[in-house]
Amino acid sequence: MQRKRFEDMTCPIARSLERVGEWWSMLILRDAFYGLTRFDEFQSSLGIAPNMLSRRLGALVEAGLLERRRYSERPVRYEYVLTPRGLDFRPVLLSLMAWGSRHFAPEGISLFLEDDRTGRAAEPVLVDAHTGAPITRERHLVRAGPAANERMRARIESAHRRRAPDRHQTLSSH
Amino acid sequence: MQRKRFEDMTCPIARSLERVGEWWSMLILRDAFYGLTRFDEFQSSLGIAPNMLSRRLGALVEAGLLERRRYSERPVRYEYVLTPRGLDFRPVLLSLMAWGSRHFAPEGISLFLEDDRTGRAAEPVLVDAHTGAPITRERHLVRAGPAANERMRARIESAHRRRAPDRHQTLSSH
Repeated sequence: MQRKRFEDMTCPIARSLERVGEWWSMLILRDAFYGLTRFDEFQSSLGIAPNMLSRRLGALVEAGLLERRRYSERPVRYEYVLTPRGLDFRPVLLSLMAWGSRHFAPEGISLFLEDDRTGRAAEPVLVDAHTGAPITRERHLVRAGPAANERMRARIESAHRRRAPDRHQTLSSH
Repeated sequence: MQRKRFEDMTCPIARSLERVGEWWSMLILRDAFYGLTRFDEFQSSLGIAPNMLSRRLGALVEAGLLERRRYSERPVRYEYVLTPRGLDFRPVLLSLMAWGSRHFAPEGISLFLEDDRTGRAAEPVLVDAHTGAPITRERHLVRAGPAANERMRARIESAHRRRAPDRHQTLSSH
């Protein structure tokens, strides 16, 4: 049922997008985080056509992000609940939310993350769990891992070659 | 040129997806982070049809994520370079990469982030820049901001109502 439309399927970004990259999928997940579980709730929240919603929910279930549970026998009705894998998607949505708020909210903030302990707005940033250092392009480089294929290795090596002139400049300027 | 297909366009997640949610867009951005700039490079990396690539690049330029620069006069040729807004998208891609590596890499890691100072693999996690605390569902709640419309407020309030029973359980179990 899943479409394999991407060329290089060893890339974890491509693999993620295979599961959540269809139009509507991430908004369905967003709504699931808001606590929506039922077909009609998603439909009225998103204004999405029923056949489309049905396909998207099915794909998210197949990908293991939502679990389909029967909540009524007569008539037979299902609800859709985030699995651990689906719950683990929250940082991606929050990163999108933060980026959207920074760049596409000329009229002000419509949505933010509040720290329940301090009552203050949180500012989500990506850090390295091991060092606590903010993830930056200067310090944190993408590398090929053991399971990378030739294509992926070539891509990464080429990226580092392209980057090298910059880096020399940066290094010599310190 | 941009399609306004989402119902509630005050949501910063929906606004972000309006810009990058089309199939291919995020992989084009990924490749731009690898240093690809030219039409032919994107095309051969992604195996995407030229007319589709042309439309996606145009949309990313229009949304302010890529800048189109002429690099040749005869023939006229353009390259596409990440803008500050595009560069700021990196945490979203890295979150997708980390999530994909955790859930969809049964054969092992093909791509990872390396800390250039320590030489170790970094583990990207989302924290609150103000407190340094990891962002969790228990502590960090999505709230409506000043620019939220009625629809958004209703959605958030309903989310907090749905969440309340859980929270009492969680609180009492501590």
